[in-house]
Amino acid sequence: MLLTTINDPQDLKKCTSQQLHTLASEIRQFLVETLSQTGGHLAPNLGVVELTLALHYVFNSPKDKLIWDVGHQAYVHKMLTGRREMFPTLRQYKGLCGFPKMIESPHDVWETGHSSTSLSAAMGMATARDLKKEKNHVVAVIGDGALTGGMALEALNHIGHERKNVIVVLNDNEMSIAPNVGALHNYLGKIRSTENYQWAKDEVEGLLKSIPAVGGKLASIAERFKDSMKYLLVSGVLFEELGFTYIGPIDGHNMDLLVDTLKTAKQTKGPVLIHAITKKGKGYAPAEADSVKWHGIGTYKIESGDTPKSAPTYTSVFADTMIELAAEYKSLVAVTPAMPAGSGLIPFGQKYPDRLFDVGIAEQHACTFAAGLATQGLKPVLAIYSTFLQRAYDQLIHDVARQKLNVVFAVDRAGLVGADGETHQGMYDIAFMRIIPNMVIMAPKDENELRHMMKTAMEYDGPISYRYPRLPARGVTLDKELQALPIGKAEIVREGKKVAILSFGHVFEIAEQAVNQLNAEGIRPMLVNARFCKPLDEELLFRLAKEGYDIVTVEEGSEMGGFGSAVIECYNRAGYYGMNVQIVAVPDYFVEHGSVKEQRQEVGLTAENIASRVRALMPISKGVLEA
Amino acid sequence: MLLTTINDPQDLKKCTSQQLHTLASEIRQFLVETLSQTGGHLAPNLGVVELTLALHYVFNSPKDKLIWDVGHQAYVHKMLTGRREMFPTLRQYKGLCGFPKMIESPHDVWETGHSSTSLSAAMGMATARDLKKEKNHVVAVIGDGALTGGMALEALNHIGHERKNVIVVLNDNEMSIAPNVGALHNYLGKIRSTENYQWAKDEVEGLLKSIPAVGGKLASIAERFKDSMKYLLVSGVLFEELGFTYIGPIDGHNMDLLVDTLKTAKQTKGPVLIHAITKKGKGYAPAEADSVKWHGIGTYKIESGDTPKSAPTYTSVFADTMIELAAEYKSLVAVTPAMPAGSGLIPFGQKYPDRLFDVGIAEQHACTFAAGLATQGLKPVLAIYSTFLQRAYDQLIHDVARQKLNVVFAVDRAGLVGADGETHQGMYDIAFMRIIPNMVIMAPKDENELRHMMKTAMEYDGPISYRYPRLPARGVTLDKELQALPIGKAEIVREGKKVAILSFGHVFEIAEQAVNQLNAEGIRPMLVNARFCKPLDEELLFRLAKEGYDIVTVEEGSEMGGFGSAVIECYNRAGYYGMNVQIVAVPDYFVEHGSVKEQRQEVGLTAENIASRVRALMPISKGVLEA
Repeated sequence: MLLTTINDPQDLKKCTSQQLHTLASEIRQFLVETLSQTGGHLAPNLGVVELTLALHYVFNSPKDKLIWDVGHQAYVHKMLTGRREMFPTLRQYKGLCGFPKMIESPHDVWETGHSSTSLSAAMGMATARDLKKEKNHVVAVIGDGALTGGMALEALNHIGHERKNVIVVLNDNEMSIAPNVGALHNYLGKIRSTENYQWAKDEVEGLLKSIPAVGGKLASIAERFKDSMKYLLVSGVLFEELGFTYIGPIDGHNMDLLVDTLKTAKQTKGPVLIHAITKKGKGYAPAEADSVKWHGIGTYKIESGDTPKSAPTYTSVFADTMIELAAEYKSLVAVTPAMPAGSGLIPFGQKYPDRLFDVGIAEQHACTFAAGLATQGLKPVLAIYSTFLQRAYDQLIHDVARQKLNVVFAVDRAGLVGADGETHQGMYDIAFMRIIPNMVIMAPKDENELRHMMKTAMEYDGPISYRYPRLPARGVTLDKELQALPIGKAEIVREGKKVAILSFGHVFEIAEQAVNQLNAEGIRPMLVNARFCKPLDEELLFRLAKEGYDIVTVEEGSEMGGFGSAVIECYNRAGYYGMNVQIVAVPDYFVEHGSVKEQRQEVGLTAENIASRVRALMPISKGVLEA
Repeated sequence: MLLTTINDPQDLKKCTSQQLHTLASEIRQFLVETLSQTGGHLAPNLGVVELTLALHYVFNSPKDKLIWDVGHQAYVHKMLTGRREMFPTLRQYKGLCGFPKMIESPHDVWETGHSSTSLSAAMGMATARDLKKEKNHVVAVIGDGALTGGMALEALNHIGHERKNVIVVLNDNEMSIAPNVGALHNYLGKIRSTENYQWAKDEVEGLLKSIPAVGGKLASIAERFKDSMKYLLVSGVLFEELGFTYIGPIDGHNMDLLVDTLKTAKQTKGPVLIHAITKKGKGYAPAEADSVKWHGIGTYKIESGDTPKSAPTYTSVFADTMIELAAEYKSLVAVTPAMPAGSGLIPFGQKYPDRLFDVGIAEQHACTFAAGLATQGLKPVLAIYSTFLQRAYDQLIHDVARQKLNVVFAVDRAGLVGADGETHQGMYDIAFMRIIPNMVIMAPKDENELRHMMKTAMEYDGPISYRYPRLPARGVTLDKELQALPIGKAEIVREGKKVAILSFGHVFEIAEQAVNQLNAEGIRPMLVNARFCKPLDEELLFRLAKEGYDIVTVEEGSEMGGFGSAVIECYNRAGYYGMNVQIVAVPDYFVEHGSVKEQRQEVGLTAENIASRVRALMPISKGVLEA
C-alpha cells in the first residue's frame, strides 16, 4: 500500500498526480474498513479525501496553518500526519481523538468540535503572522452549514474588511448534517446550478475593455456597468461584495483541479474563497445514499452497510412525546438549530411541517426566534444540545429569562457524551442556567419522567428547561396519561435513615444501584429524585436538616456551581451551617473521549463511589455504622 | 405645542405632512431640553425622529409590531405612545426605562438593550402571525453596526430563506457607537456613494424587455444577463441575493419620502429591507459634530454643549495601563467588539494602531479571534463588558479555556451599572466563569490593584480575567512599579477577630466602610481582599476555619453561584461543614435602572448591611458581643 509510506505531509510532495489518485482510493478503503470497527464520522471524511490530499500537497503544514471547521472531517488529515496506525483506537478511551488535538500533533494547530469557529481562528493566526512579519499561509476549511453560524459571518465580515491573506475553502456538500436552510444556502444552490461558459467570459471581457474611461456622472454609470458585467462572470457576488476573491465552484473531488486552484489561491493577494463542491460519503455507496445516517455512525458491516438496530433512547422518547403533545397543545412548536435528526424531530416535522423550524447552525437566532414566537402566544420548544446551548447564553439571559417568556429548553446530550469527548460534554448547563433569574430547571430520573416533565413545561408559564442524556432509555414503562409535576417538588423514592441521596436527573440509575448495594448490606439511605434544581424543594431540604440527615448529591454535570452547589447554597442561605453535603459530580477539568462508562469511572460517577460516600457518612454522623 | 396633543399613535394619523414636520422639530427640542437634565442616549434618538414619526404614521402599533434593535433609540417612540410626561424621570430609579419595556406600554412589544436581537424577534413574531393566520406587519429597526452581529446575520439568512413578510429598516448612520468596521460596512459605504439615476433605470429596463426568451444554454446566459442588469439598478445586491427586496438608499430625514417608502414596503410581498441614511445627533450641533461623545451622555448645557468634566474611572486607569504595558510587552494586543471608546482604548489605538483590533459588534468572533492570536504567541487582551461577554460564552469555554490559551479577559462594567438597568447589569460573569476549568478569575479592590492585576495577567500563562466596574476610580495612589500578584493568594488588609469579611473586587470600598463603622464600635473583624475567585486562597480559608472565624463574603454579582458560593463550595469540599458563611451579593432577580447607589441600597450591598451581618455573627459565634 502506498499509504503506508506516507508518514508526514512532506512524503506527499514527491508523489505524482497518479500516486495522489492511488492514495485517495487507499484512504477511502482504509476509512471504510477502520470505521466499520470503531464507528466515527465516516461520510464527512469520505467527502474531503481529495481536498485534504491537495491541501497537504500544496501547502507546508505545520508552517502553513490548516484549520478544520467543526473538526470531525480531519481524519484524513490525521492519517497524513503520522497517525494512521492509531486509527483502531479512534474515539476510544485514551485513544485517537475524533477531532483535531494539539497534543497529538504539531499539525493540529486549532482544536474544535463546535462549528463555525475556523474563520475567527484563521483571522487571528493571519493577523499574528502579519504583526510578527512572518510568511505563511492560513487556510480554513469550512462547510456550507457552518458558514451560516453567526460567528463565521462575523469573521467573514472582518477578514473581508481587513483584506487579510486568508484562504477559505468552502466545502460545499449541499447538505451539512441536516438538509441545509437559509438564504445563503439558496444562494449557494444558485451558484452550483450555474454553468460557467468560457466563451461568455471572453466575450464580455472584450466588451469591458471597449468601454472608454469617461468623466462625471457617465463615468459612474460606466463603472457600475463594469461592475455589473463582472457579475456575469463571477458567480460568488456575495463573497466578492464582502471583499473576497471568489474562485469556483469547482469539483471538490477533482484532485488535479484542486491542486491547481489551491496554487492559484496561494498566489492571490487578499482573502480568497474557494468554493469546492463535494459529496458526503463519496466512494462508499451506503454513505452516499444517506449522508445524514452516515454522518456519525457506530460500527457497521462493510458489504451491506448494515448497522446494529438502535434501542430507544431518551431522545427518541422525547421525539415521540413531542408528537403526542403537539396534538394536545396547538400552541406547541419546535425549533432546532440544524439538528432535526439528532434531536429526533424528523417525524414531528413530517407530521407537523408548519410547526417545526430548522433555522440552520444558528443557536443564537434559534433562541431569540423562539422568544419572538413566545411573545405572540406560541409555546416553542427549543431542542438543543447542552454544549451548543452555550452559544445562546446571552439570548437565554437577555431575551428569554429577562422577559420571562414561555420558551421550553429541551436540553439534549446533557452530561457525559462519550466518544465525542471534551468539546461536546454537556457539563455546564445546570450551573450556567441556575444562576439566571426566572428559570425553572428540571431533569428526569428516566424516560417516563421525561414525558411528564415535557407536560409540566407545557403547563408552566415562563422559561423552563429539562435535560436528558445521549443514552439509551432505561426501558421503564411509559405512562399513557401525562401529568404536570408540581414545580419545585422532589420525589422521595425510598424512605431511609441518616443519609439522603439527592439525585438530579438520569444519574438516578446509578444512585439507585448504589442504594440497592447498600440495602443488601443493611444500610438504608433515603433515595430522593430531586427533579428540580431550580427552584429547589426547600421544604424537603429543611426537613432533612432538621431530622439530622447527611446528604449525598449526585448529578452528571460540573461540580462547580451545579446542583450540589445549589443545595449547599440553599442550606447556607437558610442558616443550616452544620450540614454535611457530599457532592458527587464531574470535577473541574475537561473530560476526554471514551465510553460514558469509562468517563463515569474516571470521574467517580459510579454506584461504588456513591455507596462508599454513604457508608463513610454513617459512622461520621452517628458514631456507629448501621449494618 | 402640537406635541402635547399626541398621546397615542392614533393621534398622528390626523396630522398633515406639515404637522409631522412641526412635530419633528418639537420632538428634537424636547429631547435636547429634557436630556440636558437627565442624560441619556441623545444622538441616536435625534437620528430617528422622522423615522419614528413615519413608522407610527404608516403602521398601526401595537397591532403592527415595531421592534427597536438595541432599544436606546426608542425615546421618540416612547413620547408618541403616551409617555412624554414621564421623561423627567428617564433612566432614574423607578422612572422611565431607557429601553423598551413591556410593562410600560403595549406599544413596547420587545424588550432589549443588547444589539442585534431585533431580526430574530421579528422573524419569531412574523412566523407566529402566519401560523395563527393573523394579519399585521412586523417592522424591525436596526442600525448598520448591529447588523454585523452574528445573530442578526443568522436571522437575515432565515428571513430571506423563508421569504417572510418582515420589514427591516436599516438605520444607517454610518457610525454606530464607534467608527464602524467590517466588509458589510464597506459595502454599505459603496451603496451610499452611488447615485441612482432614474434615466439609467428606464433605459436598462427597456433593454431588458427587448431580450427575447430563448432556449437552452443561450437562455441561461440571457437570464444571467438580466440578473446582471438588475445589479445596475439595484444597489443592495447583497440583500437581494439573500432574498430581500431592497429599497434605498433613502434620506432618513425626509419624512415624506419615508412615509411613501414605508407605504410601498407595506404592500410588498416577502421580506423588504429599507436602507435609510440618517445622521446621529441630527438637529443639535454639538451632537452632530461628535456623535461618539453624544451617543450616551450625562447632563449638559444646551447652549454650549458643555458637560461636567469626568473624573478618572476604573476604565481610564485600565486604558492608561494598557499603554504602559504595551511598551513592556511586545506581544500585547487589544481586541474590542465595537467599544474602543467605551473601553477607553482610543489612546491605545492612537499610540499602537497595529495592535488594536476593533472587530465591530461581534463578541463571538472577538473572543475566538483573540484565541487565534494567542495560538501564535501573542497576548491578546479582550476588553469587553460583563454583560456582552455573555455573547461569547461558548467561545470562552470551547475555544479559549479548553485550549488553555493565553487570552486576557478585561471585564468592564462588572457589577451594577446604574442607569442602563437590567439589560446591562454585569451580574453573572463571576458565576458563569468560575465553573469553567482552567480559568483564573481576579477582581481588584481599587484602581491601583487593577494595574497590578493587569501585570499579573501579562505574566500568567493561560486564560485569565479581571473585572472592574463602571465607576469613578477611588482616587488611591497609583504605584509606578507594577508587580505580578501571586496567583490564588488573598490579601489580609486588617487583622481582626472572630469574623472575617472576604471582599471580592471593587466592593472592597463598601466592606472597608463597614469595618470602619465597626471599629468605631470596638468590633474588629478581619478584612480580607480576596483578589481571586478562582483559584481561591484555600490556605487562608482553611486557616480561618481552624481558628473559628465566621465569614461574610461581599461581591457585586449574582448571589447564585458567585464568589460566596465558591467559598462555601470550597469549605464543603474540604469537609469544613460547620462554617457560618454570610453571602452579601445581588439576589436572584433582574435589577432595574437607577443610580448604582440606589441599586446597592435595594439589594443590600451597603456598609450598613455588612456591618449588621458582622454584628449579628459576633454573639452567635461567641456568645457575647465583643464591644
